[in-house]
Amino acid sequence: MNAATPLPQRGLQMRSLIKPDGELELALHSVEVVPPKPTEVVVRIEAAPINPSDIGLLFGAADIDNTLAITGSGAQARATARVPERALRAMAARAGQALPCGNEGAGTVVAAGDSPAAQALLGKTVAMLGGAMYAQYRTIAEDQCLLLPPGTRPAEGASCFVNPLTALGMVETMRREGHKALVHTAAASNLGQMLNRICLADGVPLVNIVRKPDQAALLREAGAKYVCDSSSPGFLGDLTQALAATGATVAFDATGGGKLAGQILGCMEAALLSQAKEYSRYGSTTHKQVYLYGGLDTSPTEFNRNFGMAWGIGGWLLMPFLQRIGPHAAQALKQRVASELKTTFASHYSREVSLAEALQREVILGYWKRATGEKFLINPQRDAG
Amino acid sequence: MNAATPLPQRGLQMRSLIKPDGELELALHSVEVVPPKPTEVVVRIEAAPINPSDIGLLFGAADIDNTLAITGSGAQARATARVPERALRAMAARAGQALPCGNEGAGTVVAAGDSPAAQALLGKTVAMLGGAMYAQYRTIAEDQCLLLPPGTRPAEGASCFVNPLTALGMVETMRREGHKALVHTAAASNLGQMLNRICLADGVPLVNIVRKPDQAALLREAGAKYVCDSSSPGFLGDLTQALAATGATVAFDATGGGKLAGQILGCMEAALLSQAKEYSRYGSTTHKQVYLYGGLDTSPTEFNRNFGMAWGIGGWLLMPFLQRIGPHAAQALKQRVASELKTTFASHYSREVSLAEALQREVILGYWKRATGEKFLINPQRDAG
Repeated sequence: MNAATPLPQRGLQMRSLIKPDGELELALHSVEVVPPKPTEVVVRIEAAPINPSDIGLLFGAADIDNTLAITGSGAQARATARVPERALRAMAARAGQALPCGNEGAGTVVAAGDSPAAQALLGKTVAMLGGAMYAQYRTIAEDQCLLLPPGTRPAEGASCFVNPLTALGMVETMRREGHKALVHTAAASNLGQMLNRICLADGVPLVNIVRKPDQAALLREAGAKYVCDSSSPGFLGDLTQALAATGATVAFDATGGGKLAGQILGCMEAALLSQAKEYSRYGSTTHKQVYLYGGLDTSPTEFNRNFGMAWGIGGWLLMPFLQRIGPHAAQALKQRVASELKTTFASHYSREVSLAEALQREVILGYWKRATGEKFLINPQRDAG
Repeated sequence: MNAATPLPQRGLQMRSLIKPDGELELALHSVEVVPPKPTEVVVRIEAAPINPSDIGLLFGAADIDNTLAITGSGAQARATARVPERALRAMAARAGQALPCGNEGAGTVVAAGDSPAAQALLGKTVAMLGGAMYAQYRTIAEDQCLLLPPGTRPAEGASCFVNPLTALGMVETMRREGHKALVHTAAASNLGQMLNRICLADGVPLVNIVRKPDQAALLREAGAKYVCDSSSPGFLGDLTQALAATGATVAFDATGGGKLAGQILGCMEAALLSQAKEYSRYGSTTHKQVYLYGGLDTSPTEFNRNFGMAWGIGGWLLMPFLQRIGPHAAQALKQRVASELKTTFASHYSREVSLAEALQREVILGYWKRATGEKFLINPQRDAG
């Protein structure tokens, strides 16, 4: 093992614990910095985003709005909240385990195992996917690191995986399942803006669904052709027209709950029937698909089945998708991300905080609400040694 | 063309019309009995079931409960009802067309085209799938007829296709999509009892979901091992246990609306997690699928997404399924039906009516409600002339 500077013995790591009695506890733990095996490296994490997909592991089903309580500060910071009784059964499998959090991050390789591939990364800036990123140090296999192009700051590479690969995965899923255009909801998000840039670059027709007029304006300024605002009274008509114009028959929905998924299917069906030549008693025979990849709306999903029989709604998740397409195709997507990191896949953060600050009340309430346009970055190097 | 007896020039045929103003009209039309082309036959229909899948074409979205009105009798019988304003858009594609009804039926071949295959059917009892079966005569391609074994009465062969092939299609779908057991709702229906017999014969574990204790008793008497009564307070626990015991990860739901589909997915997830070795933040990685193949419950479909990310809900329909598996595999299923018609695939009818009687108020209200255990058979030979 080589180390650029002497490796500290311990570092802070954020963990989420749900106790069997229903108390959620988010706290910083002092954990050993594990020396690298020959094919591993130790990364000093300098940037890790709080993605919507991190929120589930951080808070489980806890009632943050009404029961959040904070004690301590600095390395002793500790946030607690109650998981409602009715939701405890779904949390049973994680009860009693203090789970490390943070899907992705970036930083500097400060120690490396003896293998040439690990050694080659020493001193370099890398991005990582793999959990436990809300920490000062992370020991990880070298082949789980993406070497960032020279001159890339950790903050620029911190969101290399989750959003970029999810956006690319949507377009790839559309192609592999035989659709020719796609629909995206919560389309003004960081991920949505990325998807818009990908679709513009690749010539893929994209129907963007947003929830506010200023979000629609933002996307139109970024070149989006089809933008439908669900807060507008003419939303369903606008959406049907955009679907007819693009022929989109697959949608990726970040909201998950409420009526939106069913409305999309209903408008897809109306668009298809408006172009049909004869009546079909079971509706259009064209398969219409909505994938729920997020849960911004935690209310139940509800739909009226006014879209014939050729339809599907299902979950969509990045990791199983990458496994399905295989390592070769997955690597091609990652390379595209690395080479377009400052353009197509650029992320914007509204606030940078330390690990300890990420456990402060107003900070938690800030990222908890997952507001479009607000994205938090954790920089564990802001925490005291 | 040969005819056993002189072919009448015209016959009665039931048609459903939704006028652009929203009036539904069900009436008997006197239509030409079309002489057969060389590869066609003319069948005198003696039995045609009213399946749940026929109800949609018969009544569209009309409000039968509150607006049904009857005029005339015999060949002049006519039933009308109103399609609510909000549902008219979905009916636009069929507006103004008087559509023949009835998916399947059986009868005697009374005339045949000159081809040897058509001639071979003359005088024989056949079953048919193809629409326009609520009629006294049906001209149809000979290869759309299934020759019934000698000694089979038309009433015994009238339900050869829709229920038997749907039940077989469920088991076939289960196998092709890699599941090892299945779930069925409204399981005491004619179709459900068939599916139970198929699964017992084939050694496929089946979880039957019923809505009443007497339906549970009926299935248990028929040898069903797993029967869960959704009216029981312990339903979700019983279902989870049955799912854990069978490993069922695919369900076919006849009800479509309400919370049942989501409850099935939730219980599948609970069954999988109860056997999982470690916590997975996105839930079980095993894909769980519910197919909605009917709409007995016309209320919205609603679910809470408490079943991880590896799941799907979608429509399932017999005809696209048969096209997907191809003519060879479809023919194998049909042959099994013909050879087990009086055992595995036996149907039971609670009432036989003429075409004109099928337009009487109390008869319509009888089959409209699609009660489990009540099934109507139309015998057009009971109509005069």
